[in-house]
Amino acid sequence: MKLTFAPASPFARKVRIAAIELGLIDQIELVATAVVPGQANEEYSRINPLKKLPVLILDNGDAILDSYVVVEYLDELAGGGKLLPLSGPTRWRVKSEHSMLQGMLDSMLLCRYEKFARPEGTHWNAWLDDHWNRAWCGFAHFARQPTLMSRPFDVVAISLICALGYADYRFPDCGWRSAFPELNEFARALADRPSVKVSAPPAP
Amino acid sequence: MKLTFAPASPFARKVRIAAIELGLIDQIELVATAVVPGQANEEYSRINPLKKLPVLILDNGDAILDSYVVVEYLDELAGGGKLLPLSGPTRWRVKSEHSMLQGMLDSMLLCRYEKFARPEGTHWNAWLDDHWNRAWCGFAHFARQPTLMSRPFDVVAISLICALGYADYRFPDCGWRSAFPELNEFARALADRPSVKVSAPPAP
Repeated sequence: MKLTFAPASPFARKVRIAAIELGLIDQIELVATAVVPGQANEEYSRINPLKKLPVLILDNGDAILDSYVVVEYLDELAGGGKLLPLSGPTRWRVKSEHSMLQGMLDSMLLCRYEKFARPEGTHWNAWLDDHWNRAWCGFAHFARQPTLMSRPFDVVAISLICALGYADYRFPDCGWRSAFPELNEFARALADRPSVKVSAPPAP
Repeated sequence: MKLTFAPASPFARKVRIAAIELGLIDQIELVATAVVPGQANEEYSRINPLKKLPVLILDNGDAILDSYVVVEYLDELAGGGKLLPLSGPTRWRVKSEHSMLQGMLDSMLLCRYEKFARPEGTHWNAWLDDHWNRAWCGFAHFARQPTLMSRPFDVVAISLICALGYADYRFPDCGWRSAFPELNEFARALADRPSVKVSAPPAP
């Protein structure tokens, strides 16, 4: 299997951590791929019209997307029920929490593009504030959870690590560690876990 | 159960069509909800920090998101395997195709905001072209499928109808019907299906 990825992509990081935790990373060839908003990449558009990372390309050529579906696929390949519950109310809670984290990351990427990719003079602060607020309210949601420190290292914990790591990487002055000491404790407790450490984004 | 929705939301439409097809619509109270980019909605942010539609709120208060997870949940509630396969390679193909359609719709909404929501003078054409191209390449992908007309009315067919309907609603001059006659035939064949008809967006 091949996985399209970039070291800075929090979505690709999610899949890398999942593959390591599931013991499948040795079966996956990482293929560095450059996608830039506002720039074409015709070769990659043929694999994924969305031009997004990551995509898992199976040996038969089938492309699996998005990052969440890839994690579900790898989880099933590893026997199932390891990174998300196979059934019951917890399954839907985990899926919904993951959707929230996915949307938080989408919003953070929109903030990044708004602040740093747009040409001078085309910024819209109300949009930036709106999307930053979505991510921030999402962090507050997870910080409030009494089970944060005792939860399993599942797809939600992995995605939360990726979202916090992305905040550190792209918005180092946003102050999430002081605003949410519970999340700081959560991130510190997992910082030395091998899958988390090896997949950390490059120095800003 | 309650479903937050707006008549113009293609994501809410997807869930409405699914609920009708699954025979569950009578168990769902539709709750009209207004979300506008760049404007706060604190009450709804407490339910969904992402401020996105739709969310399914269960009778015990649990919130299920996003639209895809809601469709999966309703499918399971209706017995399972009705709108997406329960196992096998087809399951991953359907999930991946749905991810593509979800991303196409996300890109079309970004185009809508870029063209019509941003203040005068803050437009960035390269971004608009990039995201429109993602949706367009996605439509081309589905138009090329030899099984388009024979596929079951599953979560992919539903999402494709919603994406095409959104193109009609927000970009009536984009010309998808002439560019992709296969998709035009697909949409025409399903236009009178009751779930499709009753959920159509309001007149532009």
